[in-house]
Amino acid sequence: MELHGSLQSPISESMNFLNEVAHRYPDAISFAAGRPYEGFFDLDAVHRYLETYRKHLQAAPGADEAQVLRTLLQYGRTKGIIHQLIARNLLVDEGITVDAESIVVTVGCQEALYLTLRALRRTDRDALLVVPPTYIGAYGAAQLADMKLLPVRSTPEGVDVDDLVSVLRNARAQGLRPRACYLTPNFTNPTGVSLDLETRRTLLRVASEHGFLLLEDNPYGIFHGDEEQLPTLKALDRSRSVVYLGSYAKSGIPGARVGFVVADQRVAVPNGGTTTLADELAKIKSVLTVNTSPLAQAVIGGKLLEHGCSLRDANARETKVYRDNLRAVLDGLAARFAGDGGPPVSWNTPRGGFFLCLDLPFAAGDRLLEHCARTHRVLFTPMHHFYGDDEPRRQIRLSFSHLTPDEIEDGLDRLAAFVAEQSRQAAQ
Amino acid sequence: MELHGSLQSPISESMNFLNEVAHRYPDAISFAAGRPYEGFFDLDAVHRYLETYRKHLQAAPGADEAQVLRTLLQYGRTKGIIHQLIARNLLVDEGITVDAESIVVTVGCQEALYLTLRALRRTDRDALLVVPPTYIGAYGAAQLADMKLLPVRSTPEGVDVDDLVSVLRNARAQGLRPRACYLTPNFTNPTGVSLDLETRRTLLRVASEHGFLLLEDNPYGIFHGDEEQLPTLKALDRSRSVVYLGSYAKSGIPGARVGFVVADQRVAVPNGGTTTLADELAKIKSVLTVNTSPLAQAVIGGKLLEHGCSLRDANARETKVYRDNLRAVLDGLAARFAGDGGPPVSWNTPRGGFFLCLDLPFAAGDRLLEHCARTHRVLFTPMHHFYGDDEPRRQIRLSFSHLTPDEIEDGLDRLAAFVAEQSRQAAQ
Repeated sequence: MELHGSLQSPISESMNFLNEVAHRYPDAISFAAGRPYEGFFDLDAVHRYLETYRKHLQAAPGADEAQVLRTLLQYGRTKGIIHQLIARNLLVDEGITVDAESIVVTVGCQEALYLTLRALRRTDRDALLVVPPTYIGAYGAAQLADMKLLPVRSTPEGVDVDDLVSVLRNARAQGLRPRACYLTPNFTNPTGVSLDLETRRTLLRVASEHGFLLLEDNPYGIFHGDEEQLPTLKALDRSRSVVYLGSYAKSGIPGARVGFVVADQRVAVPNGGTTTLADELAKIKSVLTVNTSPLAQAVIGGKLLEHGCSLRDANARETKVYRDNLRAVLDGLAARFAGDGGPPVSWNTPRGGFFLCLDLPFAAGDRLLEHCARTHRVLFTPMHHFYGDDEPRRQIRLSFSHLTPDEIEDGLDRLAAFVAEQSRQAAQ
Repeated sequence: MELHGSLQSPISESMNFLNEVAHRYPDAISFAAGRPYEGFFDLDAVHRYLETYRKHLQAAPGADEAQVLRTLLQYGRTKGIIHQLIARNLLVDEGITVDAESIVVTVGCQEALYLTLRALRRTDRDALLVVPPTYIGAYGAAQLADMKLLPVRSTPEGVDVDDLVSVLRNARAQGLRPRACYLTPNFTNPTGVSLDLETRRTLLRVASEHGFLLLEDNPYGIFHGDEEQLPTLKALDRSRSVVYLGSYAKSGIPGARVGFVVADQRVAVPNGGTTTLADELAKIKSVLTVNTSPLAQAVIGGKLLEHGCSLRDANARETKVYRDNLRAVLDGLAARFAGDGGPPVSWNTPRGGFFLCLDLPFAAGDRLLEHCARTHRVLFTPMHHFYGDDEPRRQIRLSFSHLTPDEIEDGLDRLAAFVAEQSRQAAQ
């Protein structure tokens, strides 16, 4: 059966392979999964959130019980029902001021990304700028939308903006239309690096001058360490150059699958006049998933309501876990690899988020991951997955978000044994 | 901003216009919305379903509390968590035997349809057979997947199979590849007609002989009246010609947004061997919505568990409402239009489902709907929406699923006044 081309790409195999390895070695300690911490998971809170949101609806002027039940249980508004709370959340936590009508509530951030790319892809000349290594799902969504990818050079600090402009110009010279650049400015996946303020401002200027959008993905922004938080691109955006992709999978409840997109760009409509990009995205959503489960939205809405719309506040305990885990991994790496005579291993030092990267003296691809899982009972993510290809590289991603201190210590011991073994073999 | 072509099509405007009219005339009686009956909506039952499913997980051999919470609240399996219960539901309610591994749980039936079309669309030669008038969302999903539409002639009984074969041959002669035919064999939207057993068997034979799939959408199948239920295409399928698209929006809870696809077709994979179409659809889903909210799945799972996996049983009250409403509309139309001297109005007599169609002596498009809503305070759906164009036709759809007996009587009075007024004007 001949199927869509994206199904033959390494990306499509990446997702499968990574899931499957984790399932085959359930007793391995996983530095691979970028999942939120589970220690505070609480189903009773879910029931409570739902009731909190129900009471919120009941308290609205003119609300009657039939209308409350209809909002929660019937087919609903395509753009969602918790858009006002999300707008408030963006203001409280990020200093972003947006009209709630420019928000579309989505089935996770992934649907937000796909909706945006599908909307922007008009012909096969439309292309997306990406800065590898980057989130696997960005490649996947772009391929599913039949959108060409234009890789931009990364630096240890994030993005090589000069290269971005050069890629943009070359693409245009070839008749391509770079419509947007996908970025995670805060604690990016996989490197954990954040863009500095100057780079953020430069990117906004370049996007505005050259007429492309910045797709800002921000799942990790609130999980900063002790440092002051930098403003998001959207908070700095004065020219509607930024489409903001929001996730409640890390800060809300992963199992609700609720995310959103802020798309306040003006779009001309055929019969004259303008609408917002959000309204156009909603049209696509209406034939993709119709609307995001209002029950799932209500659960996230209740959590927002209970914390004054601040997920920074709601995640105080989790943020401490992530900060402590980051510290434990950095200290643990130093204790195991910083001494003389060991294998030449180095790593970067992010200031928050879920991830960091380890440079190794040997290339680590999927085969070596499998060996490591089987023999050393520890999992990591080979870096090639974040380049969208299948070429092993001398770098791996470590995720520490869902581990306990004991698991980190034990896992780093196992990882050190793996690295020592492989370094010996590479040296032979 | 240049956006995807589907955003300029009449389909895209259809969805918007129909929603917007309903919002502008909230006191109009609506024969337009194809929504399930709300009289039994119960949020306390939602809490109970969630707990029922939690206990089901807790009762599994070797289950521990952390694993139960992880299943409900963490990122989950791409293909879903309630696939075993869905397989049991299909067996109990429909006599369909499928491997649970061939099921992908989706964000409503709409995502199931889009996943399938996206997978089948490899080049611009791939096309979808449709039988207008048909569900608006099928046009929408196909356009979003950049898939050509090949209309097949309908008959009062459903599908003109000879025309289907002729369309198929002509399309192939032009270099197109008809990959599948979208159908709702039971109480189809908009006409309420069901295919007879012979047509079902003929379609299966033709699909198998000519090498295309039947995409069987079955949201209304369990809402049959007093008649014996006919087997679904999937229950009769011996050659894996049928991809079954399942919805729990009508039979479960609309606000959960849970549907599924059964795709047990074998697919060759690049490195040799085979997989199932379901596994390929899961790869697409992983970059579209990642996974369907496990909380929403748990609510549907709990409802299934409480009713021995029979939604026929769970919907006994609703089924009676729909049957009584159908009877009330048929009787009410006869009382108002069957006498001598009135306008020449006729209608079909479905045996179940949510819809029927009315033939009018004048063409009724969106402008007339708007006049009717404003002046007569009653809403219907102009038939052109189900042809994917904007040409008014002398036929409208009446939906009766969510109305009370009083609303039906009152609504039919208003509709009769509208029809009398328009018939007078048409005769002048």
